[in-house]
Amino acid sequence: MKDFSSLRNDFPILFQDVNDEPLVYLDNAATTQKPTQVLDVLRYYYEHDNANVHRGVHTLAERATKDYEASREKVRKFINAGETAEVLFTRGTTTGLNWLARSYGDAFVKEGDEIVISYMEHHSNIIPWQQLADRKGATLRYLSITDEGHLDMEEVEKVINKKTAIVSLAHVSNVLGVVNPIKEIAQLAHANDAVMIVDGAQSTPHMKVDVQDLDADFFAFSGHKMCGPTGIGVLYGKRKYLDAMEPVDFGGEMIDFVNLFDSTWKELPWKFEAGTPNIAGAIALGGAIDYLNEIGIENIHQYEQELVDYVLPKLQNIEGVTIYGPQDVASHTGVIAFNIDGVHPHDLATALDMEGVAVRAGHHCAQPLMKYLNVPATARASFYFYNTKADADRLIFAIEATKEFFKDGLI
Amino acid sequence: MKDFSSLRNDFPILFQDVNDEPLVYLDNAATTQKPTQVLDVLRYYYEHDNANVHRGVHTLAERATKDYEASREKVRKFINAGETAEVLFTRGTTTGLNWLARSYGDAFVKEGDEIVISYMEHHSNIIPWQQLADRKGATLRYLSITDEGHLDMEEVEKVINKKTAIVSLAHVSNVLGVVNPIKEIAQLAHANDAVMIVDGAQSTPHMKVDVQDLDADFFAFSGHKMCGPTGIGVLYGKRKYLDAMEPVDFGGEMIDFVNLFDSTWKELPWKFEAGTPNIAGAIALGGAIDYLNEIGIENIHQYEQELVDYVLPKLQNIEGVTIYGPQDVASHTGVIAFNIDGVHPHDLATALDMEGVAVRAGHHCAQPLMKYLNVPATARASFYFYNTKADADRLIFAIEATKEFFKDGLI
Repeated sequence: MKDFSSLRNDFPILFQDVNDEPLVYLDNAATTQKPTQVLDVLRYYYEHDNANVHRGVHTLAERATKDYEASREKVRKFINAGETAEVLFTRGTTTGLNWLARSYGDAFVKEGDEIVISYMEHHSNIIPWQQLADRKGATLRYLSITDEGHLDMEEVEKVINKKTAIVSLAHVSNVLGVVNPIKEIAQLAHANDAVMIVDGAQSTPHMKVDVQDLDADFFAFSGHKMCGPTGIGVLYGKRKYLDAMEPVDFGGEMIDFVNLFDSTWKELPWKFEAGTPNIAGAIALGGAIDYLNEIGIENIHQYEQELVDYVLPKLQNIEGVTIYGPQDVASHTGVIAFNIDGVHPHDLATALDMEGVAVRAGHHCAQPLMKYLNVPATARASFYFYNTKADADRLIFAIEATKEFFKDGLI
Repeated sequence: MKDFSSLRNDFPILFQDVNDEPLVYLDNAATTQKPTQVLDVLRYYYEHDNANVHRGVHTLAERATKDYEASREKVRKFINAGETAEVLFTRGTTTGLNWLARSYGDAFVKEGDEIVISYMEHHSNIIPWQQLADRKGATLRYLSITDEGHLDMEEVEKVINKKTAIVSLAHVSNVLGVVNPIKEIAQLAHANDAVMIVDGAQSTPHMKVDVQDLDADFFAFSGHKMCGPTGIGVLYGKRKYLDAMEPVDFGGEMIDFVNLFDSTWKELPWKFEAGTPNIAGAIALGGAIDYLNEIGIENIHQYEQELVDYVLPKLQNIEGVTIYGPQDVASHTGVIAFNIDGVHPHDLATALDMEGVAVRAGHHCAQPLMKYLNVPATARASFYFYNTKADADRLIFAIEATKEFFKDGLI
């Protein structure tokens, strides 16, 4: 097993005090920290090769283009896409899902069609479909969640039917931390001639993703949640669909010919990448993938599962704590949403921050799930590979201290 | 006058050899280099404050949010917008213009309406309007260019009429280098109840922009062309329009309430910023604005005009050189498109690159302009404040050498 404790040294941001306590960063589902190696890639690019891509014949432009496209190949390999033409650079998961609703949805979803999502989706995988359903007269359907925090596969088999045009689901819930059985559901979708769209924002950073094995038709994720910079993400799509789709943004880089009143598009993947892309962001995302590969994504997954195995029982043992989602380690990733009786999650997060422990509190961009769980909000601790058992201990200690503090009625 | 020659030291990338010659970077209209100060802001953010914005109560999230919103205020001040609510962060100019065609255009342009652009527009200010015209049954109209490289104001007064819904023009042409009289044209647009949209990608980095003085209704520009990072840009819009417009992207950050089948939006500017924004990019753009302010944007403009005053006559004096656009320094910015008799611009750019001089060759994302000028492509040298008269001399020398080389028929 890799010595994960030494990896912390790659993240200088972790070595700071917050409110006079050493920082414990447990907000990785919102965004992860960036290792020195990735920041070095970013800086190296800007200090040696920075130029605009694809359009230049000079040396810097050629180097920038080579690096940018090399990064696309790194992404392809990381998610096992069939070809680089199927890897589109976006601003992030949200952009990818919006492109799909706009381009695939407007062209191929008809009145009366059904779009299937679940109650555990992030807003970015809800609102684009609400809007599409509204534009097309289609119906949005929600898959429910069992008491154990899973999708109900018997229900899934019923809800996905011949009217279904799109099934769009989170690979891993950003609140419940549960892994959804995408591969099985994709089979159901395909048996009904529906496309399978996957929000991979919370899975790609933490476990091996193989889009061909999942048989996802589209798969979106963000760089900033996997050690990469902000402002860059990826939309994978099967060529047969991307070829049939119109671009969403129009401008430079994505055209073959621009006449006065009409234009023609470049081939994939550039057809979708209008304007100057986030060149440095894409290259640094390639650096992040190199970094994750160096550790090994399977090792990361295994290590995080060990952390969950360590912290979940401890959290469960605190009196008055409710954990949402699966209660067993095997079904749970490092995203743990919880509440404490009698303490508002915002007060809890503020109190934990006073102890140096950074967790998130709120609806986590999942208001329908909050209503489904019948809570206004939750606290959420989310782990990454640079977290340690000591971090977990600090979380537990801070929660106990907060409980004590609120019990005494001091505030 | 500021000592501009010392500013070069802020750009380590400039101190490298290309093809065994010291680099002369003259591709600034495509993208500019980044000073150490901006790269330091970027790195500092990632090493000290990195967190997701708006949604967190912990210390890092508060710091990141504060920095992100402080950058919005820097942008507001830089372009003299009335309020920060009118400053939207985008991925770049292309995204801003596409948002306008999609959101403003789809809601407010009707069949039979006219959209006025010019023959000198960049593809990003052409294709979104072609697509909008196509969707709505509107008519796209092109303003012509005089032999002196200017818009023909007599024609402009005729073409903008009561049918005009949108006038969308480059503030500065990315090929001709001419500054368009936006303020006058905005008055004409407003007198006809049309909105005035400005592509400010080539002006904002080089001259004082005051959106209120121009009376632009919308104004889009990119960070990477003004010492900022890739993947970040700005769309300014008057509140009365932005308030009336629907968002283009849907997801986290931009909502008030998400119900199962409908949602409500946050107030401006967040209504338009779905998903995790390019936080680091926005903050580093603020750093770029600080850097430009330190020099003084008027000083930059004056210095660049001195460079043009130096290089333009020298270029004009080379036999067989054709310069496109205005021939007088007063009308010309540091973007200079040209060709040499008998040498294809791509060969020219390649030959200049062998001399270490980086210029661009091609259609510059302006195919309609190329057809209008009756050339397949041009070379383009574009200057920024870190360029020097010595750079201009190197360009002239390299062009002379290239001419000599091709004249001898060696290749």
